Amino acid sequence: MPPQSTIVAPATPPGQGAIAVIRLSGPHSVEICEKVFLPASGGAKLSGRKPNSVNFGRLADGKEILDEVLVTVFRAPHSYTGEDVVEISCHGSPYIRREAIRLLIDNGAAMAKPGEFTQRAFLNGKMDLPQAEAVGDLIASSSRAFHKVAVNQMRGGFSKEIKKLREKLLHFVSLVELELDFSEEDVEFADRSELKSLLQSISEMTGSLTKSFSFGNAIRNGIPVVIAGKPNVGKSTLLNSLVSEEKALVSEIPGTTRDSIEDVIHIEGIAFRFIDTAGIRETTQKIEIMGIRRTMEKIRQASVILLMVEATDTPDHINQIIEGLREKPELSGKRIILLLNKSDLPRKENSVKPSGDNFPSLDEKDHVVEISAKKGDGLENLKELLVDIVNEGRPKEDDIVVTNARHYEALKNAHEAVKRAGDGLDGGLPGDLLAIDIREVLHYLGEITGEITTDEILGNIFKNFCIGK
Amino acid sequence: MPPQSTIVAPATPPGQGAIAVIRLSGPHSVEICEKVFLPASGGAKLSGRKPNSVNFGRLADGKEILDEVLVTVFRAPHSYTGEDVVEISCHGSPYIRREAIRLLIDNGAAMAKPGEFTQRAFLNGKMDLPQAEAVGDLIASSSRAFHKVAVNQMRGGFSKEIKKLREKLLHFVSLVELELDFSEEDVEFADRSELKSLLQSISEMTGSLTKSFSFGNAIRNGIPVVIAGKPNVGKSTLLNSLVSEEKALVSEIPGTTRDSIEDVIHIEGIAFRFIDTAGIRETTQKIEIMGIRRTMEKIRQASVILLMVEATDTPDHINQIIEGLREKPELSGKRIILLLNKSDLPRKENSVKPSGDNFPSLDEKDHVVEISAKKGDGLENLKELLVDIVNEGRPKEDDIVVTNARHYEALKNAHEAVKRAGDGLDGGLPGDLLAIDIREVLHYLGEITGEITTDEILGNIFKNFCIGK
Repeated sequence: MPPQSTIVAPATPPGQGAIAVIRLSGPHSVEICEKVFLPASGGAKLSGRKPNSVNFGRLADGKEILDEVLVTVFRAPHSYTGEDVVEISCHGSPYIRREAIRLLIDNGAAMAKPGEFTQRAFLNGKMDLPQAEAVGDLIASSSRAFHKVAVNQMRGGFSKEIKKLREKLLHFVSLVELELDFSEEDVEFADRSELKSLLQSISEMTGSLTKSFSFGNAIRNGIPVVIAGKPNVGKSTLLNSLVSEEKALVSEIPGTTRDSIEDVIHIEGIAFRFIDTAGIRETTQKIEIMGIRRTMEKIRQASVILLMVEATDTPDHINQIIEGLREKPELSGKRIILLLNKSDLPRKENSVKPSGDNFPSLDEKDHVVEISAKKGDGLENLKELLVDIVNEGRPKEDDIVVTNARHYEALKNAHEAVKRAGDGLDGGLPGDLLAIDIREVLHYLGEITGEITTDEILGNIFKNFCIGK
Repeated sequence: MPPQSTIVAPATPPGQGAIAVIRLSGPHSVEICEKVFLPASGGAKLSGRKPNSVNFGRLADGKEILDEVLVTVFRAPHSYTGEDVVEISCHGSPYIRREAIRLLIDNGAAMAKPGEFTQRAFLNGKMDLPQAEAVGDLIASSSRAFHKVAVNQMRGGFSKEIKKLREKLLHFVSLVELELDFSEEDVEFADRSELKSLLQSISEMTGSLTKSFSFGNAIRNGIPVVIAGKPNVGKSTLLNSLVSEEKALVSEIPGTTRDSIEDVIHIEGIAFRFIDTAGIRETTQKIEIMGIRRTMEKIRQASVILLMVEATDTPDHINQIIEGLREKPELSGKRIILLLNKSDLPRKENSVKPSGDNFPSLDEKDHVVEISAKKGDGLENLKELLVDIVNEGRPKEDDIVVTNARHYEALKNAHEAVKRAGDGLDGGLPGDLLAIDIREVLHYLGEITGEITTDEILGNIFKNFCIGK
């Protein structure tokens, strides 16, 4: 049953701006707004206006005029929430915004909870749960790659496919359960080979979606890249060179502030989190040890290590550094890009030669890039390489990617349940036990799409939304 | 001539929110938007839609979908700017907002300068200059009193009246100038007694508006109230008691942060700036002296002094404090409210008695209020008194108030010019000289309404607007 209250909240970010939008949703939206809206001279009442049209007038508390506003009425079910929705566009003053909301509450609206508009859209069948979740992701997205996944998810994404397969499976399980009623007659309503091929399809889908999560998660949170190297080798210069190129781009995005540990840099629409390891050195100071521990934890999650040395260094010295790095358990086994910095300086007789015999012992999957962090030489090569490494992990259909830990969890569970059901089918498991396994698959798939949910799941999802969404 | 470019800017504050609005204005608004908008299935092209109606669809860069959006088209002259305007309501993600604006710029829009939308509205005759300025005030307003003045100004305010009187005066001056062409015939086209009464009306208006500025300015910036008193007498407790009552109210308003010197507290919709004078004591330290100087500067502008003493003090001691206060040149002549704090403590035999003979020597316009800052007793009396003091200075028509220094300047100049013209008229000044005086009045009145302006004036006014307004 849909909620019967009418909710109100600001829909635009707080602060001063040209305009602010306030949104009402619920059965009394129009009625409440009518009480405080004076149409411009000659204008009809809101309730008599055409839906989806903009009406100019004044917002007033009795005789006291609060603002001149534009009001748009959306009629159920043709609105974001599926209920009657009114959007009031007023001047972007925090005072007006606050007073307007107070006025609407005084006239019968209730303050919306975080995510309540989207939650209502879900409850009214305007979107499934991954679509609702994608709305939150979309608003939070700050890189092209994550944004693309979120847009695709909002438009249906993988949940369409899951729903389709789930419906087919639901059909099968009811046939299997029907057989139980006729158990003495030993009939088979459900075609076992068809069921097997359906389970196979589901298994393939859940498998590949589950696998896509490590890529999706990196896309969502940024690819962690550790920069290692001796002090003064040019690590900060590299970061500055990379950052300055995209400064104009990034400066507008909140939350990408550069702190001492991480710099987020966008390369070809992918966010990379560069983690400086300046802090990793032997120390006995308590506070510093704690700081290093945190850094190490981040390094453990890193995908790539940029190891920076000087191009004028000798191979022996570089080998020594690499071995020192491999000794640290957190760094061992990671993919290494060896950066030969200061490539613009003249080499010495015994300097390392990238293509020579005396080259350091790298693994096959490792790379060498010559750069001059100061002059910006070679940075394009480095960027290309980083993007290539990300793309290696990119699923074929790169817009159908799981980025959400909740989906990942359910997909993993579904995948395992499908395997059990398939094994049972192969092993000639009796119908009643087979039905239980299949029901489990249905449960996990339903959790993803929201066909099966609990108040707790919904609460967890929507509490992280902003108010007004 | 109106500008021919099509401008674009975000209209809502930066940051994350449910939605963000992007606004285009100019002759190519619809055409530019058309290039990046895919109507929902079955939808017609934007250019074919009815104005003022909301259209659902997708914003896309070629095949890459950026967001699902609502687009509203306003057709010239029925829009905010008087030009074709398109409002795009997208998801409130900084990334999407930035990309959408980039997309629109790539397709021919130009980034709007601060205030350019409102400037165009002015240039296209949608509003006069004080109305345009009121838009900026309205967005910045954070108190009910200032908001009321701004709303009234936005709806026409005093500029309507000024325009009317100016037109009449323009009629007269042309008659006077016409007389000059017939100077040999000694005719009088302009009825001198009517002119005199018109000048009288203008003088009354400019005079009362000029006077309203001290009230208007206080309303705009908050009424400065100095709190003086010995350390530990309870000044901070008073502030905390006043602040805590309205904390819920104020916390939402940006810019009312409490710093060490000022607390802004709203009483009955009026902002009061409480200035703590903790810093005023004899000192030789350079930095402290500079700080005190700044405080003293603020005190010089203050309207009211709250002098806090303890209710258990003796009259002699209080007199001594008052005299010490009056000695400071910055404080002398200010209106004093003597606060007898700690009214809840038992009095001593020789304590001051507010209504007794042994009462300190206050001026007639001063007041005494007994309070307990800690318990909150007497605060209502204090608030009432402060509001009463503000209301003493309130003009009769309290919503027609000058809050803008530019208007004040022009009104003062106009007022003086009217006086000169009136004196000239009384003294039988020849028509050519009279016309010069009247032209001057016309000039200053025209400066207010914007009928006479320069690029410099416009530049100064709109540069302080936010982008998108």
